[in-house]
Amino acid sequence: MELSAREIAEIVAAEVHGDPERTIRGVAGLDAGAADQIGFLVGKADAGALAKTGLGAVFVKEVPDEPVSATLLVVDDPNLAFAIIAGRFHPLPRAVETRIHPTAVVGDGVEFDGPVEVGAHCVIEDGVRIGAGTVIEALAFVGGNCVIGADCLIHAQAVLYHGVVLGDRVRIHGHAVIGCDGFGFAVDKGRYVRVPQVGTVVLEDDVEVGACACIDRATFDETRVRRGTKIDNLVHIAHNCEIGEDGALAAQVGLAGSTKVGARARFGGQVGIAGHVEIADDVSLGAKTGVPQSIGEPGYYLGIPSLPAKETLKIWALWRRLPELWRTRKGSRGE
Amino acid sequence: MELSAREIAEIVAAEVHGDPERTIRGVAGLDAGAADQIGFLVGKADAGALAKTGLGAVFVKEVPDEPVSATLLVVDDPNLAFAIIAGRFHPLPRAVETRIHPTAVVGDGVEFDGPVEVGAHCVIEDGVRIGAGTVIEALAFVGGNCVIGADCLIHAQAVLYHGVVLGDRVRIHGHAVIGCDGFGFAVDKGRYVRVPQVGTVVLEDDVEVGACACIDRATFDETRVRRGTKIDNLVHIAHNCEIGEDGALAAQVGLAGSTKVGARARFGGQVGIAGHVEIADDVSLGAKTGVPQSIGEPGYYLGIPSLPAKETLKIWALWRRLPELWRTRKGSRGE
Amino acid sequence: MELSAREIAEIVAAEVHGDPERTIRGVAGLDAGAADQIGFLVGKADAGALAKTGLGAVFVKEVPDEPVSATLLVVDDPNLAFAIIAGRFHPLPRAVETRIHPTAVVGDGVEFDGPVEVGAHCVIEDGVRIGAGTVIEALAFVGGNCVIGADCLIHAQAVLYHGVVLGDRVRIHGHAVIGCDGFGFAVDKGRYVRVPQVGTVVLEDDVEVGACACIDRATFDETRVRRGTKIDNLVHIAHNCEIGEDGALAAQVGLAGSTKVGARARFGGQVGIAGHVEIADDVSLGAKTGVPQSIGEPGYYLGIPSLPAKETLKIWALWRRLPELWRTRKGSRGE
Repeated sequence: MELSAREIAEIVAAEVHGDPERTIRGVAGLDAGAADQIGFLVGKADAGALAKTGLGAVFVKEVPDEPVSATLLVVDDPNLAFAIIAGRFHPLPRAVETRIHPTAVVGDGVEFDGPVEVGAHCVIEDGVRIGAGTVIEALAFVGGNCVIGADCLIHAQAVLYHGVVLGDRVRIHGHAVIGCDGFGFAVDKGRYVRVPQVGTVVLEDDVEVGACACIDRATFDETRVRRGTKIDNLVHIAHNCEIGEDGALAAQVGLAGSTKVGARARFGGQVGIAGHVEIADDVSLGAKTGVPQSIGEPGYYLGIPSLPAKETLKIWALWRRLPELWRTRKGSRGE
Repeated sequence: MELSAREIAEIVAAEVHGDPERTIRGVAGLDAGAADQIGFLVGKADAGALAKTGLGAVFVKEVPDEPVSATLLVVDDPNLAFAIIAGRFHPLPRAVETRIHPTAVVGDGVEFDGPVEVGAHCVIEDGVRIGAGTVIEALAFVGGNCVIGADCLIHAQAVLYHGVVLGDRVRIHGHAVIGCDGFGFAVDKGRYVRVPQVGTVVLEDDVEVGACACIDRATFDETRVRRGTKIDNLVHIAHNCEIGEDGALAAQVGLAGSTKVGARARFGGQVGIAGHVEIADDVSLGAKTGVPQSIGEPGYYLGIPSLPAKETLKIWALWRRLPELWRTRKGSRGE
Repeated sequence: MELSAREIAEIVAAEVHGDPERTIRGVAGLDAGAADQIGFLVGKADAGALAKTGLGAVFVKEVPDEPVSATLLVVDDPNLAFAIIAGRFHPLPRAVETRIHPTAVVGDGVEFDGPVEVGAHCVIEDGVRIGAGTVIEALAFVGGNCVIGADCLIHAQAVLYHGVVLGDRVRIHGHAVIGCDGFGFAVDKGRYVRVPQVGTVVLEDDVEVGACACIDRATFDETRVRRGTKIDNLVHIAHNCEIGEDGALAAQVGLAGSTKVGARARFGGQVGIAGHVEIADDVSLGAKTGVPQSIGEPGYYLGIPSLPAKETLKIWALWRRLPELWRTRKGSRGE
C-alpha cells in the first residue's frame, strides 16, 4: 500500500508544506525513518531530530523556522493524525472469508455471523456465537455460549470462560483471562466454601484488554467494562466491577470486588482500589496510588492513601524533611 | 434440578417463614431474581431490596417487620447457607466416566485412578498420575510425573511444570503457572548463573489458585500451600514459601522467597512480603501493605512498612496534617 | 551421571577436606541430603545443620572446628560452586536432534539452523528462524518471522508475538508474553485511537523471563533487554524500554513506557518506575519502591517516592513517631 503526502493530508485534513507528491509506504520514528515513511513530531524537544530526519513526511503542529527536507503535514494533533495514518498502513487483521484451521476444535451449535478466522489448535466450545470479521488466533480458548461481536481480535492463547459477552472491535491480548470465577467464599467453621459465580463479564465495543490481564465474572449479574476503555497488561478486575467509557487503566492496576469506576478514568500503573467503592467520572490516579474509599469529585489523586495530588505532593515534600521537623520539635534540644 | 424451600431448609437447617412448597431451580441476586430462584440478604442495607425482590426465596438472618412475598429461610449465616445451596445448583464439573478428547496428547505411563476427563489439545506428559473425578479442561499442560488428586479441576490453559503435587479438590484457574523455576541465581564475575531448582510445589486439598497466579518450585524441597487456602489472580509465590491452612490471598499479592505464612492468613490485594520472614497465624494485612520483617503476633497490620493497623491509621490521619505540623514547628514564623 | 568429590573439586577449583572418592549423583539441601548428594552451606547460621547433614559432600567457605562426616569442598563462593555443579546434574534441556511433534503446526519458510525440538500442539508461524539446540515446549506460540537464537528454552504456553528477536540461551517461562502491543493511544474527541506498534522486542543472550511476565513491543524500534538480565514472574515492561546487562528484576515489577534502566539493576518485588525516566547503572531498588523520576547516581533507593535508602529508613523511623511529634508541636497542649 502507498499513499501520497497529498492523499494523507486529505484523510486527516492537514496543511501541506513541501512536496505533496512524496510517496509514503509506511511509518517510522524521526530517528530511523526512510524517504518513503511518515512520522510525527511529538513536541518542541524533538525539533532537532526533525532537522536531521530521513523521513519523507512528518506530521507537525507548527512549521519550524529552518527549512527541512521532509514534507510537513501541519495538524492540530500530530499524534492523532499519525495514529490514523499508521492504522491505514498497519490495520488490525480482519476476517474476509471464513477460515477455520483444520486443527481447531469447534463445538456444536457454534454460529458465525459472517466471515470468521479461527487459528490452529483453538478450542471453541458449544453454542458460541461470533460476529463477522472476527479473528481468533492460534491456541485461544472460547468457553461455551460466549457471544463475540464483529471485527474482534482474540490473540493467541487468550482465554474466555463460558458465557462471556464481547461487543464489536474488542481486542483481547495473549494470556488474558476473561470470566474467571470471582474470588467469593463463605466461611464454614473456619473453612472457605465456594460461592458459585453465576454471573458473567461484558466487554462493550472497542474495549481492549492487555496480556495476562484478568477480569472476573460477577457473582450474579455481570462485571462490565464500557465502550472504549483500554486495559493494560496484568490488570486485575474483580467480580461485579463496572468501569465507565473511554477509560485507560495502566499495567498492574487492581480493582477489588463490586467497585464502580466512572467514565474517562485514567489510572497509572500499580494503582489499587478497594472493594465496594465508587469513583466519579474523570478521575485520574497517579501510579501506585491506593484508594481506600469512594472518590466523589473529578480530579487528579495520588498517594497511599489517596488524596488530591496537590496535597500529596506537598506532603511528599515535607515527608523528606521529617528528620528536620523532628529536630525542631517542642522540648527537643536539637538532638 | 429443583428443590422445594422445605428441602433447602433441611439441607442448611433453616427456619422457614412463608410457603415451604415453593419450587427453586436456581440462584440470583436480590435485584434480578425470578420466582423460582433463591438469593440471600447480605445485611440490613439491603432490606429495601428484600421488600421489592422477585425471588421466590431468600436466606435472611432475621425476619423483617414488614411482610414480604418471598419465602424466608432464617439462618445464622445467610451467605454460607446461600453458598451451600448455590453449590448444589452450580456444582463444579466432576468426571464420572473417563473421556480423553481425541486431540489430547497423553504421554507414556500416565495413570488414572478412576474416571478422568481430559479436554481438547491438552498435553499430559509421561508418568503423570490423576485421581478419580478430576477434570482437565482444554489446552492445559501437565508436566511429567505430576501427581494430581481426586476431584480436581484444572481450567483451560493452566500450566503445571513437571513433578508438581496436587491434593484432592484442588482448583487451578486459566493461565496459572504452578512449579515454574524459582528465581535463584549465583553470581560469577558479575554474571548470573542459574541455580537449578530441583524441588517442587505441593498444593494440599481444597487449595484454589487464580488466573495468571504463579507459584514457583522450591530450590530443594517444596513450596507448599496448605489445605483450604485460596489464592486470587496474579499472585506470586516465590520458591520455598510455605502458606498455612485456610488462608485467603487477594489478587496481585507477592511473597518473596522462603517466607513462611501461618494459618488463616487474610491478605488484601497488592500486599508484598519480603523474603525469609515468618508471619504468625491469624495475621490480616490491608491492601497494598508491605511487610519487611517477621510478624510474630496475630492481628491486623497495614502500611508500608507494615505496622499494627491502628497505628498506621493514626499516622495516616496525621500524615495529612503534615503541612500544618510544619507551619507550627519550633522556630517557624508560621510560614 | 556421577562425579567424585575430587572431580567436582577440579571443576570449581575447590580444596578438599575429607574423602575425595565419595561418589556424588545429585544435589540436595543440608537438611534432606543423602550420602551421594552434594549441597552447600550458605552462612554460619547453618553451621548446626552442617554437623547433622546426611549429605556426602558440602561446599563451604571455611572448614568448621568440629569434624563433620561429609566431604567438605572449600571455595570462596559456595553458592556459585553449587550452582555450577548443580547445573551439571540438572542441565537445561537441549535439542540434539530435530524432533517436531506430529501435532505441532509449523508454518511456511520456517528455518532450523540445527537440531531443534518443537513440542506437542505448538504453533510456529511462517518465516520463523530457530537456532541449533533450542527446545520449544508444548503449546507454545511463536508468531511470524520471529528469530530465536541457539540453545533457547521456550517453556509450555509461552507466547511470542510476530517478529520478536531472541539471542542465544534465552529462556522464556510459561505464559510469558513477549511482543504484545505497547499501550499507546491517541485521543480523538475523547475516544482512544490505537497507535500501531510497529517495533519489536529484542531479548539478548542469556536473558530469562519469568512466568506471566509481559514485555511489550516498541512503537517504532525495539524494546530491548540486554545480555544476562533476569526477569521474574508477572513483571511488566512497557514499550520502548531498555534494560541494561546483568540486571535482576524481581516479581511484579512494572516499568512504564520509554524508560531506560542501566546495567546491573537490582529491583525488589513490586517496584514501579514511571515512564520516560533514566535509571543509572548499578541502581538497587527496595521492594515496592516507586520511582517518579530519573536516578542519576548508583546506589540503593527505597520508598514511595524513592529516596536514597538511608534517608527513607530514617524517615520511616520517624514516621512511626508522628503521633508523638504531633503532641509536641508548637502551641499544642499535649492533646
